[in-house]
Amino acid sequence: MLQSSDLEKILMTSQDTVLAPGPVNLHPEVRKILAEPMIHHRTPEFDKILKDTLKGLQFIFQTQEPVFMHTSTGSGGMESLLINPLSKGDEIIIINSGKFGERWVEMAKVYGAIIHEIKVPWGEAVTVSQVEQLIKKYPIKMVLTQACETSTAVLHPIKELGEFISQYPDILFLVDGITACGAVELPMDLWKIDGLVAGSQKALMLPTGLSFVSFSKKAWKKIENSDIPKFYFDIKKERKANEKGETWFSSAVPHIKALQFIIHHIQTIGYSQHLNKIKMRSELFLKWLPLLGFKVYAQSPSPSVSAFTVPDGVDSQKLRNHLEEKYRVTIMGGQDQAKGKIIRIGHMGYITKEDLLRTFAGLAYSLKELQKLKLNEIELLKIINDFEKEILPEMEF
Amino acid sequence: MLQSSDLEKILMTSQDTVLAPGPVNLHPEVRKILAEPMIHHRTPEFDKILKDTLKGLQFIFQTQEPVFMHTSTGSGGMESLLINPLSKGDEIIIINSGKFGERWVEMAKVYGAIIHEIKVPWGEAVTVSQVEQLIKKYPIKMVLTQACETSTAVLHPIKELGEFISQYPDILFLVDGITACGAVELPMDLWKIDGLVAGSQKALMLPTGLSFVSFSKKAWKKIENSDIPKFYFDIKKERKANEKGETWFSSAVPHIKALQFIIHHIQTIGYSQHLNKIKMRSELFLKWLPLLGFKVYAQSPSPSVSAFTVPDGVDSQKLRNHLEEKYRVTIMGGQDQAKGKIIRIGHMGYITKEDLLRTFAGLAYSLKELQKLKLNEIELLKIINDFEKEILPEMEF
Repeated sequence: MLQSSDLEKILMTSQDTVLAPGPVNLHPEVRKILAEPMIHHRTPEFDKILKDTLKGLQFIFQTQEPVFMHTSTGSGGMESLLINPLSKGDEIIIINSGKFGERWVEMAKVYGAIIHEIKVPWGEAVTVSQVEQLIKKYPIKMVLTQACETSTAVLHPIKELGEFISQYPDILFLVDGITACGAVELPMDLWKIDGLVAGSQKALMLPTGLSFVSFSKKAWKKIENSDIPKFYFDIKKERKANEKGETWFSSAVPHIKALQFIIHHIQTIGYSQHLNKIKMRSELFLKWLPLLGFKVYAQSPSPSVSAFTVPDGVDSQKLRNHLEEKYRVTIMGGQDQAKGKIIRIGHMGYITKEDLLRTFAGLAYSLKELQKLKLNEIELLKIINDFEKEILPEMEF
Repeated sequence: MLQSSDLEKILMTSQDTVLAPGPVNLHPEVRKILAEPMIHHRTPEFDKILKDTLKGLQFIFQTQEPVFMHTSTGSGGMESLLINPLSKGDEIIIINSGKFGERWVEMAKVYGAIIHEIKVPWGEAVTVSQVEQLIKKYPIKMVLTQACETSTAVLHPIKELGEFISQYPDILFLVDGITACGAVELPMDLWKIDGLVAGSQKALMLPTGLSFVSFSKKAWKKIENSDIPKFYFDIKKERKANEKGETWFSSAVPHIKALQFIIHHIQTIGYSQHLNKIKMRSELFLKWLPLLGFKVYAQSPSPSVSAFTVPDGVDSQKLRNHLEEKYRVTIMGGQDQAKGKIIRIGHMGYITKEDLLRTFAGLAYSLKELQKLKLNEIELLKIINDFEKEILPEMEF
């Protein structure tokens, strides 16, 4: 059994733990690859890496369609997903359930879409019938949603939405899978997703810097007719370059080399085992944090990130700052209307047993130090020890 | 004096040398930084790094105006530079002297500019009078150029152009400094440049992944009135975020940390010494490669990259492939109309004495192996030895 003194040793390490919903802890092998000498992107050596990685992305997206890379953050990928198939004046539905739903709204406004917004209260998931009502009323061309809304940790019913929207030959279903693709089940083809975007610093466990998009055949028809001016994110140009074995612009070589490793790593583990690893981590926190006084915030929690309402009288921003400054564990607080009220813990990336333990025990001790823990020392030690026993080897790495 | 056997040892190393006009050899310290554990971009630790780095970029750009970062390749930065101040139907001049001038043309077409193109023959530089003629004829709003056209290694007369264009209160001078800024003299404020873009994988010696843009006060007036739809590259939004100490989107943390190091590195050397280092490297090749039968291609060669016409009967693509496969030295061939005809050698990045020697001697031996060298073994050894003697310690790193 861990004693206070053992915990102190584990907690007071000089190592940083990032359990945020992106960026995430890097795999040691990724760090090694990032440190390799530069190779040029127009070389036979890199050509092979690019080809293999683009193929690997189809495995991650679970699609037969080509997947493309942009050198950009996730938001750049969102822009690509939107403006490639969009035309001015298209009527579109946006499921706005948090900060990234709002980003869809801002972005679509800029590009001249007529927006029908489904404002889902923060922490809740959308229903198919909400979408159905709007589709019956307006000549909708697209439905935009997050798979997981990062700001609330909600997972939306993507499978059901895809099934429903696929009945309409003229409506595309475009999904922001940035905090989902590679971390939760999200098979693009099987679930009839017409456009999917992912980001490098989430489930793909790399630094920020790449986004990935793919489109269904149904979407490609609209891409051919889109009248939105675009250059950097023009997917037709990127496709042409990929067909010649290149990226259109300079390739972000170290990122792509590291991505190749990560995809092979996931393939070695097995995709469902990899997703299960992330799910088990989330279930661990969903089960144990309530014993410290936290409440699960999201109605349908995503395995990729969990949000918790903090115990009464606690400012979540102060709590996360304390955890970071004292214990070098980075988690996120809430944004906008959830600011000060929730914490968010990411379950993606290279996570060890110690990371899990340090995050949980660090939160417990931080609450205690902020005088908001309703447990005595013995109860606290028992809970931490019980938590530790439930960390399985399959949850690591 | 180096003998054949010494040269063989130097040439047959297992180390890669990248003397391309971007990406470039990485500084060992940069490689170390890229391999560090991830830190989150919303932390006090990163806030300090970002603030310092944004300030450092002003030093690199030699400007009092704020400099902004995009997570993108250089072409993304070009797009930002163009579409932020542009409005539909603006009449603009594009100095098209190579592949990247063509990129300006393609891009500006997409965004609805009326383009007056100055088609400069490949290898030549534009003159102020060419620009003057068009300005007198049309209601021009912008002049777009490369400082150094990467595909031809030509340096345009930026100072003179800036001086001339600055007389016109309604005309902006926008400069692609991707293969120039940080490598050749290009003081934004002093030379009256209204918009300047740089890229991470060139003079800033990082991997591909960041671009940097800055605008003059004259340009900001147009930015306020621009009617081009934009989101990811919207510089007004980025400015607002920077004013709060953040990047608008997720920050590319390892790149930015490495950039901070590089800027400090350049500051420690001294900016003019740093530029001089690059110039000395270019002069070395400009002087010595003609002795192997190469001809200097560019009319006004840029210090950042040199282009050479290959000796008669040589296919430059074959030559560079041979150099890469046998000696692990990556330089570039020609693009489009210069394909097969020229080689291009970059002078930016972390370059050691050995890199310089391996590139020169590797080219000499490659020519010999392709049976296109008009020197006997003794003459060859003498030239390489003379070249080696001219490599000064100030040219390294």
